Amino acid sequence: MTTVDFSAWSCPVPLRDTPAVVMGHGGGGAMSAELVEQLFLPAFGSAGAAELGDSAVVEAGGARLAFSTDSYVVKPMFFPGGSIGDLAVNGTVNDLAMSGATPLYLSTAFILQEGTDLAVVGRIAQAMGLAAAAAGVRLVTGDTKVVDRASGDGVFVNTAGIGLVAPGVTIGPRRARPGDVVVVSGDIGVHGIAVMSCREGLSFGTSVLSDTAPLAGLVAAMLGTGGDVRVLRDPTRGGVAASLNEIARASGVGVSLVERDLPVPAAVRDACSLLGLDPLQVANEGKLVAVLDPGSAPLVLEAMRAHPLGTGARVIGTCVAEHPGTVVARTALGGNRVISLPIGEQLPRIC
Amino acid sequence: MTTVDFSAWSCPVPLRDTPAVVMGHGGGGAMSAELVEQLFLPAFGSAGAAELGDSAVVEAGGARLAFSTDSYVVKPMFFPGGSIGDLAVNGTVNDLAMSGATPLYLSTAFILQEGTDLAVVGRIAQAMGLAAAAAGVRLVTGDTKVVDRASGDGVFVNTAGIGLVAPGVTIGPRRARPGDVVVVSGDIGVHGIAVMSCREGLSFGTSVLSDTAPLAGLVAAMLGTGGDVRVLRDPTRGGVAASLNEIARASGVGVSLVERDLPVPAAVRDACSLLGLDPLQVANEGKLVAVLDPGSAPLVLEAMRAHPLGTGARVIGTCVAEHPGTVVARTALGGNRVISLPIGEQLPRIC
Repeated sequence: MTTVDFSAWSCPVPLRDTPAVVMGHGGGGAMSAELVEQLFLPAFGSAGAAELGDSAVVEAGGARLAFSTDSYVVKPMFFPGGSIGDLAVNGTVNDLAMSGATPLYLSTAFILQEGTDLAVVGRIAQAMGLAAAAAGVRLVTGDTKVVDRASGDGVFVNTAGIGLVAPGVTIGPRRARPGDVVVVSGDIGVHGIAVMSCREGLSFGTSVLSDTAPLAGLVAAMLGTGGDVRVLRDPTRGGVAASLNEIARASGVGVSLVERDLPVPAAVRDACSLLGLDPLQVANEGKLVAVLDPGSAPLVLEAMRAHPLGTGARVIGTCVAEHPGTVVARTALGGNRVISLPIGEQLPRIC
Repeated sequence: MTTVDFSAWSCPVPLRDTPAVVMGHGGGGAMSAELVEQLFLPAFGSAGAAELGDSAVVEAGGARLAFSTDSYVVKPMFFPGGSIGDLAVNGTVNDLAMSGATPLYLSTAFILQEGTDLAVVGRIAQAMGLAAAAAGVRLVTGDTKVVDRASGDGVFVNTAGIGLVAPGVTIGPRRARPGDVVVVSGDIGVHGIAVMSCREGLSFGTSVLSDTAPLAGLVAAMLGTGGDVRVLRDPTRGGVAASLNEIARASGVGVSLVERDLPVPAAVRDACSLLGLDPLQVANEGKLVAVLDPGSAPLVLEAMRAHPLGTGARVIGTCVAEHPGTVVARTALGGNRVISLPIGEQLPRIC
């Protein structure tokens, strides 16, 4: 037997005084960010990027490429409105689109639990094929690993994707300025509630279907206006709250929301009350948050509303010079509340 | 609760009469190939590539890119000579190199089991950073998911990679021709035996260390000769036997090996005897198999031997017009034996 000297690893192990991985490290909130900033980036050293974002823009052979990856471990694998296969394609397509890229190619990697019904694997793969065709991307390379029954849970799917970024497109989290307009493309909180509604031991009646959808076409319509789209994010884990906090911190601006302008469907609001959740922190899989130059905003909003995935687009707030790095919402009662970055895991294994 | 109609999936479910995933589907042999050809490709439909190989060569913005992905589930995560972190970087670097590409960028995606020691995660990440620096690639984008204790096993790592393929480079599994020379870059069977030697319940004394290493520099040296390198493969799961069978089938040639010319270290031979394994079917993580134009072979071999990772390079056989699609070895006793594609999983979770 070989022995491993763990003392050789002496990075400032994070995080909220836990020496071990907890569910919150996968939640897309503050603990996830700490894991990246305090553990992965120092460990990667000079080979790591300055940031390890959802999507990187890199150069290869004279082409500007967006490159992104996500693993999907959603439970259950099939839920109202979609499946892990839809998420695995649309999620990576959307990460690429948030760089303003045209998604082109995806890789697919499966970790299968021994004993999983092959018909389930087939259904997931079929969903991936249909989603890829709908998004206009090709599944060009893949891998399959199998783990024993005690070491997996059905099907885990990883996709990575390559997209092409057109010359002149410079969308990025640091570009928000005071005065910019904050827009969301439609109803929020839908995906997370759809998955929770069929979670074992937690089932409750709701008609909410996941909003999983590919957003590259909507982004292309926005960019096609020639307007200045400063920042794009798809508010998945951690929801709109996490996306806006990340933008506020990266750009050094405040974000001021008007709570009554948030498009929260009644069924999502009811389910959130039941579960004790804030709709702003619930995952979306077919929505985007955009920060727009105020002069461009009317034209871009018009283009969004003309697209099938942006009919519900609306302004939810503005970027301000006050409270930099912080998101504040004006409540219906006229007060203000701080919308913080979620700490850990509100809804485990939601994607 | 939502219900799923599995009857809607009616692809000719494979494979050796099993309706469920078995370990063999991840073994890199015949069952893995059936899963891809009979399940994934039909399910992906028009969005899938004609082949779903280890590495795809695609075009983006005028650049020729190699794109590849692998997930790593090796058990144990640390083994003599390396770790899951080394494999995750070198494995994808090597898949890219086998297309003749210069590897540039990797994505990293972690599926962490709740409760895993963060120091273990840090050690793995540190190994990835060092391996990436050694291979000259950058880790530019990432993702972390956490699954509950019953649904994972320590750390699973996925990497995907982008490499740049120079104009004129046309390495591919269909290019072998009768008369071509088959070369291996050094000792075979090393990685699989190193991992097995410390597998729980199976530990046996051996000094064998994994050969995990990045092969892009060796490939660059080979291509730098200007010789015609027809096919390259890194013989991981399924070993040299799987790589040669795949080449024989794709090119429609026979492969004729001389068994006594195979570089099998004594410690590997002994361990294989003990475990009942064929060294030709044991995984390598730092070796390549090359098919060379006979006129180019002497020059390319010389360049390989001048490179630190190719000092043990040697000819092990030739491509022949006889027995197309089949690999045959001449034994020490003067007989012939067919070297078949491994069916299932000889050594589970070896990478």
